[in-house]
Amino acid sequence: MADVRFVKADTLKAKPDVTKIGFGTHFSDYMFVMDYEEGKGWYDPRIVPYEDIKVSPANTTLHYGQAIFEGCKAYRYKGNKAVVFRAKDHIARLNKSAKILDIPQVDEKLVYDALMQLINIEKDWIPDGPGQSLYIRPFIFANDPYLGVSVSKCYKLMIILSPVAAYYAHGFAPVKIMVEDTYVRAVRGGLGAAKTPANYAASLHAGLVAHEKGYDQTLWLDGVERKYIGEVGSMNILFKIDNKIVTPELDGTILDGITRRTVLQVAKAWGYEVEERRISTDELLQAYKDGKLEEVFGSGTAAVISPVGELGYDNADTKMVFNDGKIGPFAQKMYDYIDGLHTGEVEDTFGFIDVAGQY
Amino acid sequence: MADVRFVKADTLKAKPDVTKIGFGTHFSDYMFVMDYEEGKGWYDPRIVPYEDIKVSPANTTLHYGQAIFEGCKAYRYKGNKAVVFRAKDHIARLNKSAKILDIPQVDEKLVYDALMQLINIEKDWIPDGPGQSLYIRPFIFANDPYLGVSVSKCYKLMIILSPVAAYYAHGFAPVKIMVEDTYVRAVRGGLGAAKTPANYAASLHAGLVAHEKGYDQTLWLDGVERKYIGEVGSMNILFKIDNKIVTPELDGTILDGITRRTVLQVAKAWGYEVEERRISTDELLQAYKDGKLEEVFGSGTAAVISPVGELGYDNADTKMVFNDGKIGPFAQKMYDYIDGLHTGEVEDTFGFIDVAGQY
Repeated sequence: MADVRFVKADTLKAKPDVTKIGFGTHFSDYMFVMDYEEGKGWYDPRIVPYEDIKVSPANTTLHYGQAIFEGCKAYRYKGNKAVVFRAKDHIARLNKSAKILDIPQVDEKLVYDALMQLINIEKDWIPDGPGQSLYIRPFIFANDPYLGVSVSKCYKLMIILSPVAAYYAHGFAPVKIMVEDTYVRAVRGGLGAAKTPANYAASLHAGLVAHEKGYDQTLWLDGVERKYIGEVGSMNILFKIDNKIVTPELDGTILDGITRRTVLQVAKAWGYEVEERRISTDELLQAYKDGKLEEVFGSGTAAVISPVGELGYDNADTKMVFNDGKIGPFAQKMYDYIDGLHTGEVEDTFGFIDVAGQY
Repeated sequence: MADVRFVKADTLKAKPDVTKIGFGTHFSDYMFVMDYEEGKGWYDPRIVPYEDIKVSPANTTLHYGQAIFEGCKAYRYKGNKAVVFRAKDHIARLNKSAKILDIPQVDEKLVYDALMQLINIEKDWIPDGPGQSLYIRPFIFANDPYLGVSVSKCYKLMIILSPVAAYYAHGFAPVKIMVEDTYVRAVRGGLGAAKTPANYAASLHAGLVAHEKGYDQTLWLDGVERKYIGEVGSMNILFKIDNKIVTPELDGTILDGITRRTVLQVAKAWGYEVEERRISTDELLQAYKDGKLEEVFGSGTAAVISPVGELGYDNADTKMVFNDGKIGPFAQKMYDYIDGLHTGEVEDTFGFIDVAGQY
């Protein structure tokens, strides 16, 4: 195991009723922290009480955004284990984002060990109701205390934990998504494949516009031709067309979603044909007209599977409604299966589960 | 004047020799701070000792990048005044960036008054050597203490001050710039017109590549066709073609540079024809071959005017050299004139100067 320093908290917090709090609003008693300095490398890995951090007003991330993050989840497994779902894949992707942003690579084994120790310490924070979990947010931010547009010399890696209820407070329900043809999240040659603040900053205004139009989220198109499907920002998008599972290829402008990978692996195991390729809005509309666009759904760590009941443009004439706005059978089956993988009701034949502690 | 609370520092710092420190490394004794909460608006404007700030590990800017900034400068003017150059224009642009990022608008009069008070208090921090100034960095960052991709409810506006030497330590000298045809800073429909961390995060890797190839900076092309000239990231770019001053139009993908405006206003006052329009790399190359591309230079607050001695692609076959790699006469004359406007050696017929204090 990695040599992680532990600083005990004087008092522990009362655990909130997760069904009564929003996503990411409450944090557990401890967090993992590790620092980096040029010439010294990553140093002082430690688990310390969760508290505010001090940064310089000139902190590089506040001004120039050199930062990355991850999002994964811990579950109560088979009633007696605290587990993390696909922990190694998330830590590997953190390093992939780090490369795109020129942030120094982390020792994946050390971060994995530290995460497992943190989850073991905090296992009582994993809620045990249906669809509930402990959301894990690893992140790295540039921490130079001076202004200058260049790659930073100092960084901080942190992992914080937040107990969350099932994403859909009123049950698993379809969302309405607006195809965004004005604003662009990320373009070829940009940062779209990294989990980095820039991509989220670029999505905020379009999100507001979508809400005003009565939609829940934004479906991004490519920034060049504005005709190829990208992702939804908080999740990847998948289509069931003529009994095949089709999703945009990883072209550098969208996130290589871990839940996307899970869905594709499970769909293949179920015998479905899976295609990762360019998908145009014209193709979708034609498949819809031909009655072959059977289901649309998103995949992401927060909601796991998010069935799409309606896909529309600002111009309502072109809207497509799926399964009468209800959950499609494939999305339901996939949600139930992955939910079962999380909790141990479905046997983990993929090696997705890592045990951090026992109850 | 705005009602700005003042908290006196116990001790003041020794002022550094600005010729021996880098850009943006040292900060003055005081900073301006103001907070925002939804429903309450901007509140508690105050000038307080410069010190680290506390943020939540879940701080929205560290994760989702909803932040903006400005950069302007204070000068010693005619030997006896502390002045700010184009303060109102910079504060107006802060609000323009705020709109793009869905950050609440500030009261420009209040921020202007506060800035003037801050500069008056800190006027001894304005260095008085040639080309020296007190760099002013106003910025606003989202300050919600919880995770969630949406427009934040809390913000902090700060103004910090850093004494800086002339940008070119070894005298005013031309830079070598690489035309970037792989990476993209900002695209149509994105955040390119805002002064926001996302655009700088997107520029970091290309900056490293340019340095490795022996270039000082990156000239960005449009993200769609990759043939139209954009900006340099830390500055706008201008060309003198056949005795006209030509610069890319404000198409939403580049910053509306204040120094760019100054250059265009001064050039017009000198009787030059000025064109703001699309400029393709093909046009530039043709003008170069025809001997009509007389000068290339950048404009920005940090360096003011930055003559370009060489413009090249990664492929060295297509490089263009201007004025034998030396400073062009127009760039030199423009630098001298704007430098004179800053210090009062040139009469301010434009209304660019605001007096903050007297010595």
